[in-house]
Amino acid sequence: MAATRPATQFDILGIGNAIVDVVAPAPESLIVQLGLRPGGMTLIDAAQAVTIYGAMAPGMESSGGSVGNSCAVAAILGARVAFLGKVADDELGQVFRHDIESVGVHFPTVPLAADVSPTARCLIMVTPDAQRTMSTYLGACVEFCVTDVDPRLVADAAITYLEGYLFDPAPAQQAFYFATRVAREAGRRVALSLSDPFCVGRHRARFRHLVREQTDILFANEAEICSLYETGDVFAAAQAARAEVDIAVITRGPNGSLVLAGDAVAEIPAEPSTVVDTTGAGDAYAAGFLAGLTNGLDLAAAASLGAKAAARVIEYYGARPVGVLEELRGAMKARD
Amino acid sequence: MAATRPATQFDILGIGNAIVDVVAPAPESLIVQLGLRPGGMTLIDAAQAVTIYGAMAPGMESSGGSVGNSCAVAAILGARVAFLGKVADDELGQVFRHDIESVGVHFPTVPLAADVSPTARCLIMVTPDAQRTMSTYLGACVEFCVTDVDPRLVADAAITYLEGYLFDPAPAQQAFYFATRVAREAGRRVALSLSDPFCVGRHRARFRHLVREQTDILFANEAEICSLYETGDVFAAAQAARAEVDIAVITRGPNGSLVLAGDAVAEIPAEPSTVVDTTGAGDAYAAGFLAGLTNGLDLAAAASLGAKAAARVIEYYGARPVGVLEELRGAMKARD
Repeated sequence: MAATRPATQFDILGIGNAIVDVVAPAPESLIVQLGLRPGGMTLIDAAQAVTIYGAMAPGMESSGGSVGNSCAVAAILGARVAFLGKVADDELGQVFRHDIESVGVHFPTVPLAADVSPTARCLIMVTPDAQRTMSTYLGACVEFCVTDVDPRLVADAAITYLEGYLFDPAPAQQAFYFATRVAREAGRRVALSLSDPFCVGRHRARFRHLVREQTDILFANEAEICSLYETGDVFAAAQAARAEVDIAVITRGPNGSLVLAGDAVAEIPAEPSTVVDTTGAGDAYAAGFLAGLTNGLDLAAAASLGAKAAARVIEYYGARPVGVLEELRGAMKARD
Repeated sequence: MAATRPATQFDILGIGNAIVDVVAPAPESLIVQLGLRPGGMTLIDAAQAVTIYGAMAPGMESSGGSVGNSCAVAAILGARVAFLGKVADDELGQVFRHDIESVGVHFPTVPLAADVSPTARCLIMVTPDAQRTMSTYLGACVEFCVTDVDPRLVADAAITYLEGYLFDPAPAQQAFYFATRVAREAGRRVALSLSDPFCVGRHRARFRHLVREQTDILFANEAEICSLYETGDVFAAAQAARAEVDIAVITRGPNGSLVLAGDAVAEIPAEPSTVVDTTGAGDAYAAGFLAGLTNGLDLAAAASLGAKAAARVIEYYGARPVGVLEELRGAMKARD
């Protein structure tokens, strides 16, 4: 990897759903009344988005999306990052573009005309027990397709990082396969986040094939890896992943993380932190790990940077607290 | 007042600039580099908004505006509230409408066509010392005018509550005078927030006249009341205000507040709280005070409800933390 790094313009190319989050508090009764799965992520259509938003309390909007968050954090940490994802040419799309470009991420995707479909939004209701119930209206993301993937850009990134959520909109799934093929043909690496245990459930057969055949670096939390291998034993699932990918990273919340690479296993403890909002913790971990890996850190040091980034993110509201992450920039080796 | 209350449909009609806040962290050097006054509120045009937003870190968007915040909080506390203010028919305008209507505020203002001018936004940069530097692009608010003020609505509200910021866009200033005249002719009361010491400085002569001739209830913090009466002595300023209005309310941050009404003076201590974000503290105080006053509380009890609402608001991010304010509803007497 160290050999290929200087030859690429970007350390990380992220491809994901470009989403603006809308967060508001909600009583548990409202989640039930709306027919949502408490703690889960449900895909909704435009009409449901109107109904659910109409029932929500005053909200706070911020740019989101799993890989989008990772790209922003990796850039803040000092990595060279590009992102592909579809927003509409509307105000929320402008917000998304501002937020990701303002931390230095290259974001070349052409926006969709505003009258076709609006920028995607994730309606997040936070119940008094701090549980988050998400309803995602994919909007413009449904139009992300293979022509949005510039093969030169993929070939020019050391790692192409994709999210499992991309499998929900069908054209994005095609773009996903195209990107992985181009990356591997160019001798680059493919990283995948499983995104969500229910997302794994929706696409398990394809994910199993994808992990085995086209993934170099796999990120999953315990629920996701157990869902993928249909086991309740996270260590058995981790061993299964280790046999299929070069690097398997299992995040375990307050119990730290596990990095498996061939015969090597590293257990990385969670960094101490005061939890304010866990949004984006896994995204920040992946950001630190990939930024570290593409900038000369070994696996354990990269995982440690991931753990540090996650610890900082959960101490603040939102998934991209730019100010508090900048102090971690020194953790990566200086690039010449 | 108790005699007029049952005759009105609304306790409070708020009239203010309808603004969406964009909050992001910023180093002090950026404030200087952009030529902004640290800690102040500067009015900016569309081109400056593009420049400043372009220089800002990833942000969080939420509905704002001083009187808009007060209306939302008063409604959460259980008051019957209407609001007038101009948004555009764009996504941020829809966010503003959702946030204020979702807490039960009647918001009849017709939105401006999106291609005329966008919804107003306040770009808020928070420096490491927690100071907030605000740049406001008034956008659609500049189009708020006298035809947006329905005199039947004004006559049907026990208190019409206006913000000094309305004096910045000229047509809104005319609407302001129209509303105060209608309110007083209908035997209703007019409340005014001075908004900001620099806003007072921009419009001092008019504000002095307005306070003396057309205001029943005046809200100001120490800097604002001192600016109005051009004195460095807050108690002298408070006495001057007492001579000109029925009720003068001076908020003093952690030092509590002072309510002067004729010969009566009440000193209300600040409620204990852990400061997370002071945004909207004054707005929440005014909300609690006006909601209490229009629902049968005496001055001291209304001020105490204001202090409680402010204390809760500063413990959370944002100006309208709906969940934590609902517990204060019981503080108001039951309406038959």
